[in-house]
This record gives sequence, structure tokens and C-alpha cells, in this order.
Amino acid sequence: MRIGIDVGGMSFKGGIVNPEGEILYTHVESTAGLSGYLPMEEKLFILIDELLAKAKDQDWSIESIGVGVPGLADVESNLVVYCTNLGWNNVPLGTHVKARYGLPTFMDNDATVAGIAESAKGCTQGASNSVFLTLGTGVGGGIIVNGKVTSGSHNKGSEIGHMIVGENFYDCNCGNNGCLETFASATALMKDFQRRIEAGEATGLCADVDGAKSVTAKEIFDGAKVGDPAADAAVKRLAKYLGIGLANVVNMLDPEVIALGGGVSKAGDFLLNMVEPEMRKRLVFKEGKQTRLEIAQLSNDAGIIGAAMLANYK
Amino acid sequence: MRIGIDVGGMSFKGGIVNPEGEILYTHVESTAGLSGYLPMEEKLFILIDELLAKAKDQDWSIESIGVGVPGLADVESNLVVYCTNLGWNNVPLGTHVKARYGLPTFMDNDATVAGIAESAKGCTQGASNSVFLTLGTGVGGGIIVNGKVTSGSHNKGSEIGHMIVGENFYDCNCGNNGCLETFASATALMKDFQRRIEAGEATGLCADVDGAKSVTAKEIFDGAKVGDPAADAAVKRLAKYLGIGLANVVNMLDPEVIALGGGVSKAGDFLLNMVEPEMRKRLVFKEGKQTRLEIAQLSNDAGIIGAAMLANYK
Repeated sequence: MRIGIDVGGMSFKGGIVNPEGEILYTHVESTAGLSGYLPMEEKLFILIDELLAKAKDQDWSIESIGVGVPGLADVESNLVVYCTNLGWNNVPLGTHVKARYGLPTFMDNDATVAGIAESAKGCTQGASNSVFLTLGTGVGGGIIVNGKVTSGSHNKGSEIGHMIVGENFYDCNCGNNGCLETFASATALMKDFQRRIEAGEATGLCADVDGAKSVTAKEIFDGAKVGDPAADAAVKRLAKYLGIGLANVVNMLDPEVIALGGGVSKAGDFLLNMVEPEMRKRLVFKEGKQTRLEIAQLSNDAGIIGAAMLANYK
Repeated sequence: MRIGIDVGGMSFKGGIVNPEGEILYTHVESTAGLSGYLPMEEKLFILIDELLAKAKDQDWSIESIGVGVPGLADVESNLVVYCTNLGWNNVPLGTHVKARYGLPTFMDNDATVAGIAESAKGCTQGASNSVFLTLGTGVGGGIIVNGKVTSGSHNKGSEIGHMIVGENFYDCNCGNNGCLETFASATALMKDFQRRIEAGEATGLCADVDGAKSVTAKEIFDGAKVGDPAADAAVKRLAKYLGIGLANVVNMLDPEVIALGGGVSKAGDFLLNMVEPEMRKRLVFKEGKQTRLEIAQLSNDAGIIGAAMLANYK
């Protein structure tokens, strides 16, 4: 059995996972109101202690601890280099967990971890080459090549959300212009919809420019499904640039399958049917066997399962 | 010893290469005037026969035959799927070579093969993760992850030249708009320079619009070095988009080193000094250890050396 921990902005979710990627037990520790690393580390230890106590109780042997973080983890030094949302900078999470529990400890970015979960138990299972994209507030990526997580020589790779795919009307948080994240995230969709309403495009989703600010990505997708003009145009634009980003991934890495996860992926087949042609028409090689494009199967549990399965992908 | 064959538009170049990647003997067979696959295959056999006779003569044991092709090779079926310049379509090159000589036979795209040569004996030697870009008439790519060539699940990957990085004033041969190849190849540089002269930009490199058509990429680089206005603007645009393409590669794959080869790379440090800042400013993680950017060391011999070393990278 392995322990998997999903480090989030408001809580740490932990689970005990069997070798098949099934969750046997979960426990959550809230980190609301805490700031700085050490108070949060205390909560992390409470969480792991609880999971280990449960394992002992059940006579489960724990082989490793895996942690997915919303930032950059350095595999060699076992530091969390950045976690912007948590205010962490070069914190010794991996080192401390390993020292305290004496178990093999693995860390990686949360999008990579979610990609591992899909590979272990979701829609990319069995594929030795797969790519996972999470389309949420931002866009994150996880890349598996020859059955191993590929985060590069300095663990700075798989940032597919920051692939520059064109020019955009607003800059990305990273400081660049044209990142896939600024075209294909839920945030991007909402910003594009607001811009359209400001420009006078027709919609039934809100009364005015002020109202446009509270229209959600889900409402825009729902509007597009029933032909709302501004919503339809915004979703089509998202589909075009997501298609470009996916074509770039396929032309470069030619994975067996790409999985789309995150909030935007909840639009399901409606999204796939718009994005897939935009991707296919931009592929260099259009004949023969092709990369499949699918909606991710796991959602809330992906962080725990993927973190627990990290050991298999390193 | 291994045999490496470089399939070109006008000739087949073959060599006997030792395990250190050194060429011990070369031979060339012209294919000028030939059309169709079988007449060219005859020349290929003549070439390999000659190399094997030399090996026998010298008492060198040949372990494998590797072939680099200017197109798409399918590793599983040992077919050359496309070679547009040679008019080849699903030709059984690998199968026939293997059947005739009974030696392990490997094939791959010529850019991938040149990347392997750099990895075996050039500027990416010793790096387990590296990327090679050839900037010539077009832009080709080779990707090495964990010491192995990564061409994906259907051998359609590493087409970095067709990564879409923006919008361009002309379409790519592949049918898309915005491919890196249309910004960063020698062809792209010449087209952009011509466009500038047509628009009335100042230059000392030619007298008029007609004259602009015969200005070479090398002349444009040389002009930029001495401050020719249109040449300088064209090279800066190439550097910007090449920087975007390279940043996309680093943000995605984080290789230890990227090597730039092909005709455009002969601009050397002048090119690097313009491109590297354009790449660095677009990296998501700007601190700590970084991907190195270098000019490829091998040129004419890369095709033979890389083809011979294919066996080590599969």
C-alpha cells in the first residue's frame, strides 16, 4: 500500500491506495487560516500520522509516501521550490517527510500527479506515452514517455499551459503573451466572453457588461450549446487555440492518448467534438494510427491516487 | 562497427562508424536522374555492398545498419511512409535491407538522426535529455528523453518545425499557418526580407524588389551584422519566434541542452546572442539550473554518424 497526499490551497487530502490504484481510506486536514510553511507542515504530519495509524490498525504495509503540490518540486533536493498560492519558497517538505517517516518519498507537480492517476487507473491506462492536460483556473500538464514521468533535466518541464500558441488580448500571469492557459482555461473563457459583451456582442446570458463579470465558464458552455451568440463565439475560440496547443503536443510527442481534465473538461463530448477537428487538421501526419483524445475519468480522487502511484513512474 | 546511411535528394552517403561515433570509411552513390523507389534501392544495395566489402577487407565486424531518411519512417513495419522529395510512399526500405543483409536495421527521420549524432559525438554528448533543431530550408527536430529517441507511439513526433507559435503572412507547406518553420528557417528569413523590401524598407543588400529575391539567408545575416535596416529587422523577427519555439520546448521538456544545427546555425554566436534572451524571458522558471542553448558541432557527417548510432538510441 502507498500513501498519497494532495496538497491544496485550503486543505491536505490524504489516502491509502493499493497497488491497483484503488483508494482504501481517506483523511483530510484543513489548512484554512494557516500561513507560512511550518504550521502547514504540522498539519501534514498529523495527516500522515493518522493514515499510518489506520494502516497499522488494518495491518497494511506502507511502502512509500507521494505528495502532489500546486507548484514546482525539485526531485533531487526534495524541496518544494515554489508554491505561489501557499506562499512556499524552497521549503523542505520532501526532506522532512522522508526524515520523519523513513519511507521512500516522492513529490511532483499536481498536474503531473493527476496525469499519473489517469495513467494508473483512468483513460490513459496501458499507454506507455500519454499526455494529461488539466483545464481549470489555469492549464497544467503531465507528460509520460515510455511509462515514466517526464519533467526534464531540472524538473521544470510539462508546463504545457505556458506554451505560446498565438497572440492574445491579455497577458498571462507568467508575464508572457499568448500562453495556451490564456486561451484554454476557464479564466480565459470568462475573460473572452466579458470582452465580447463589452464589444457589444449579443448574448442572453447577462443583461450588461457588469452582469458579464459573473457569468461562469459552465454557463458559457451551456449557452454555447443552445446557440447563444457570444458564448458560442467564445467557446469556438477556446476550441481553436486548444486545438493548436494539442496539435503542437501531438506533432512533437505523438502520444498514444491525450486526456483532458479539469473543470473545462466537464463539457465532455460537446468540447471534444469542437476541439478534435481543430487538432486533427493541424497534424503533420494525418494518415495511419493517430493519437486519441479523451476526457479524463478521474476527478476529485486523482490527486491522491496519482501521488500514491508516483513511485511507479519515477 | 556499424554502417550509417544518409539518404539525400541527390545521393546516398554511407559510412562505417566505430562505437565511439568516428567515421572510418565513407562511400557515396549518386542517385541523380533516378526516379521511383526500386532504381534507388539498387543504388542503396550497391552502396551497402561496397561498405561491407571494405569491412570484410579490413576485418571489421558490422553489427547493424542504420538509415536516416528525409521523411517519415515507421519503426514497427520498417517502411518509409513518406519521403516527399524522393517521391517515396510506403516503400519497404527497412524490410528489404534487413532481408538482404540479415543485420539489425534501424531507420529514422534525418533530423532525429542528426540529433543522435550530436548526442553521440557533438554538443549534446552526455545529456540524457536533449533536443536538436535543424534550421535549414525547413525546420526539423530530434528529441532524446532518458537517452532514447522519442518519436512517439506512431513515430510521428519530433516535428518541432510544425509547432504553431503565432500567425504568419504566409502559410506553411504543411497547410497550416504559424508553424515555427515559417519563422525560423532560411526560407522564412528570405521571404520576410523580400516582404520588407516590397514594403519599402531600407536595405543596401539589393537594388529593388526583383533583386531582393536573390538575397540569401547568409547575406541577410551578414547584412544584419553590419546594421542593414531590413536585414536587421528580418533577423530580429526570426530570433523572436525561434525564441518562442525554444521556450515552448523548454517549458514542455526541460532538456539539459538544445542544439541548433542546419544552415541558419552557421550564424553562430551572432544568432545565439539574439535568440537566447528571447528564449530565456519566456521560460516559466527562470531561477536555478537551466537548459543550455548551443550551436551543433557536426555538420556534413551528422547524417552518417547518427544513422550508424541509431541502434544505441532505440
